[in-house]
Amino acid sequence: MSEELEGNCLVAQSGGPTSVINASLAGVVAEALNHECIEEIYGGVNGILGILNEQLVDLAAETQQTIRALRHTPGAALGTCRFKLKNQQDYDRVLQVFEAHNIRYFFYAGGNDSQDTADKISKLAQERGYDLRVIGIPKTIDNDLVTTDHTPGYGSVIKYIATTVKEIACDNAAMGQYDLVQIIEVMGRSAGWIAAGAALAKGRDEPNAAPHLIYLPEVAFSAEKFISDVQHVLQKEKYCVVVVGEGLVDADGNFVSTASASSDAFGHSQLGGAGEYLRGLVEETLQIKARAVSLGMSQRAAVHCSSQTDNDEAYLAGQAAVAAAIAGETDKMVTLVRGDGETYTCETGLTPLSEIANGVKKLPESWINEDGVSMNYNFYKYAMPLIQGEVKVPFENGVPVLAKLNMVKIPRKLGAHSFE
Amino acid sequence: MSEELEGNCLVAQSGGPTSVINASLAGVVAEALNHECIEEIYGGVNGILGILNEQLVDLAAETQQTIRALRHTPGAALGTCRFKLKNQQDYDRVLQVFEAHNIRYFFYAGGNDSQDTADKISKLAQERGYDLRVIGIPKTIDNDLVTTDHTPGYGSVIKYIATTVKEIACDNAAMGQYDLVQIIEVMGRSAGWIAAGAALAKGRDEPNAAPHLIYLPEVAFSAEKFISDVQHVLQKEKYCVVVVGEGLVDADGNFVSTASASSDAFGHSQLGGAGEYLRGLVEETLQIKARAVSLGMSQRAAVHCSSQTDNDEAYLAGQAAVAAAIAGETDKMVTLVRGDGETYTCETGLTPLSEIANGVKKLPESWINEDGVSMNYNFYKYAMPLIQGEVKVPFENGVPVLAKLNMVKIPRKLGAHSFE
Repeated sequence: MSEELEGNCLVAQSGGPTSVINASLAGVVAEALNHECIEEIYGGVNGILGILNEQLVDLAAETQQTIRALRHTPGAALGTCRFKLKNQQDYDRVLQVFEAHNIRYFFYAGGNDSQDTADKISKLAQERGYDLRVIGIPKTIDNDLVTTDHTPGYGSVIKYIATTVKEIACDNAAMGQYDLVQIIEVMGRSAGWIAAGAALAKGRDEPNAAPHLIYLPEVAFSAEKFISDVQHVLQKEKYCVVVVGEGLVDADGNFVSTASASSDAFGHSQLGGAGEYLRGLVEETLQIKARAVSLGMSQRAAVHCSSQTDNDEAYLAGQAAVAAAIAGETDKMVTLVRGDGETYTCETGLTPLSEIANGVKKLPESWINEDGVSMNYNFYKYAMPLIQGEVKVPFENGVPVLAKLNMVKIPRKLGAHSFE
Repeated sequence: MSEELEGNCLVAQSGGPTSVINASLAGVVAEALNHECIEEIYGGVNGILGILNEQLVDLAAETQQTIRALRHTPGAALGTCRFKLKNQQDYDRVLQVFEAHNIRYFFYAGGNDSQDTADKISKLAQERGYDLRVIGIPKTIDNDLVTTDHTPGYGSVIKYIATTVKEIACDNAAMGQYDLVQIIEVMGRSAGWIAAGAALAKGRDEPNAAPHLIYLPEVAFSAEKFISDVQHVLQKEKYCVVVVGEGLVDADGNFVSTASASSDAFGHSQLGGAGEYLRGLVEETLQIKARAVSLGMSQRAAVHCSSQTDNDEAYLAGQAAVAAAIAGETDKMVTLVRGDGETYTCETGLTPLSEIANGVKKLPESWINEDGVSMNYNFYKYAMPLIQGEVKVPFENGVPVLAKLNMVKIPRKLGAHSFE
């Protein structure tokens, strides 16, 4: 047991929101309240960007109802960012803000890039001899963080997608002769984790049910094979439901998307349009009616159809981050560790931030069937437990009741930061 | 009270499915079982098209569990069609099929075109002296049938859209500085009923909440005003959520959609692309990031987020259709009649099919605010009661349990129909 460290804690959120990133926030706040060595509980507005700007809010000033309602509120209640610290000046500024507000505990919920940021802040604090405990909280619908069995956010996005695919398939079954082919485009920039999750719409004993075809970024796309796959399905079934990940690439590694690819601040391409591309291919090549759905942001915001298992684990990850820091841990990220038994269990672990930063967990190719368009037993065994249970979202006036933080500002103590 | 008519009943579904068309089917079956003069309960496969082909199934052979599960199953369980009877030969064939199977009660769930078909069948039977009672059941997410206060299917589609818009807005609020403008395209070929329903995402006391702008087919679209509207929102808010109906038209009545417009069998244009068009306008004109979501089929299939009020009324409409026919009514459609009191109540009525056929109920322009992009009190008063209550969908293995009919075939008695 390490020496008790007294001071304030700061929690912030980074990257694209998930249905459960606010559940992690609730977990941090709830656990922080248990420890007297944590004096104030601050939130950083818009992730590291707001911290640079010394935009801190008082989370202890929020009501218990609000903190509880965070557990079923999408988005990132504190605001988020896609900002990367650019230079030594930026890093120095973060430490200045921390010192000015006596931040001794820093919790950062985010994906690879955000864990990298946390790692660098942690290392700088150590260099400077500033006593700071930094714990990352995993967050991404993309499920691509290494060393954790899965990431909070993933179970909910695939539960929503599997549900939506199953429902849309009923519509297609009824309309089969008119809308023969339905294309559903889902997120997944560099990996097929999300598209693969659509397989859960059908049971393992229903090989002919929808989705009939899943196109993953892991399998080089061939227009010829795609058309042949669709024809094959339509010979057996009266309609064909296709799921495609936005990051679909051809044999040369080029995105098949027809949309113009702009880039975000981290240099990732912003995709979209793979679904429309496949729809066009079907209509032009086969001269039959096809429709495309692009679920977009609704995928990561659909708390009304999110996984209770995922929600519980996200909350647990937030609590575990605080508990670890109190116990003296730093420069680590909370991981989700699956039990070995037949029945699914999950507890938290810790892993060095440096191992997470910029690592990418790939969808194992051995989980994809030989046909390249469906998932085998190993994927079902992995993913099925993650979508169990339905988060009960309270409704009022026919729509979900969502939390909104009061965002009580902490007075600034420093001047403005000069960004380069 | 009319004379008791003994014979078989036939129920069929037509046009695009809704979240609750199967609830109406369940209502028909449940009520038909109550009346001994109805001997067999048949379902017509794929609407009038399957009836022409003498494709009938035995609904009494389905289990009670299946009929109950229809209440939370999207699609059209019997299959549906967009087929219009083309000539006298087609109409004669329908009566031949009815005579061959002693069909004396015909219930047809559908929109304008389907009620028109039902009307013509009814009139032909009268001409020929064939004793047949025909009752239409209103069905359409478009809410455009005249004489009924609203249509089963509408409440559920707008509940799902309002929920989705509210959730996505949380994501945008968090990501505001990166994704400034979010465009959500919803269905609605010729009227803005569905797009208007997105207004329910915000309370009447939250004028500045999302959706900030709603573009309706009723208001001629001007690209200049749109850009100015978006700029105006972004001056006050850190993000802008736009909802657009797919049927948006310019001052000349031309669809703004960039998608190529093909036509369905009734000559309606199949739209899509208004959202992408607006996204492009924002990015090109304002040089800021915009995203577009196209919910497509998920809107009318999302039983997991459907309205209990809508579901109850759809079931009631099915029951009322049978009760009316038993009472001697024919050539009528069931309507939903709203009570006059302050508290919402709804009962069923009847209206001649000829009044429904090809009539279109427009969204009253007086319910649109002067800004042309938001709805006033009258719309809220009308629509709010329709989205109340959440249908409880059972989940198994993390996804909804949906009914599938066994579709026990009734042996054919006639030869094949020759389509022209």
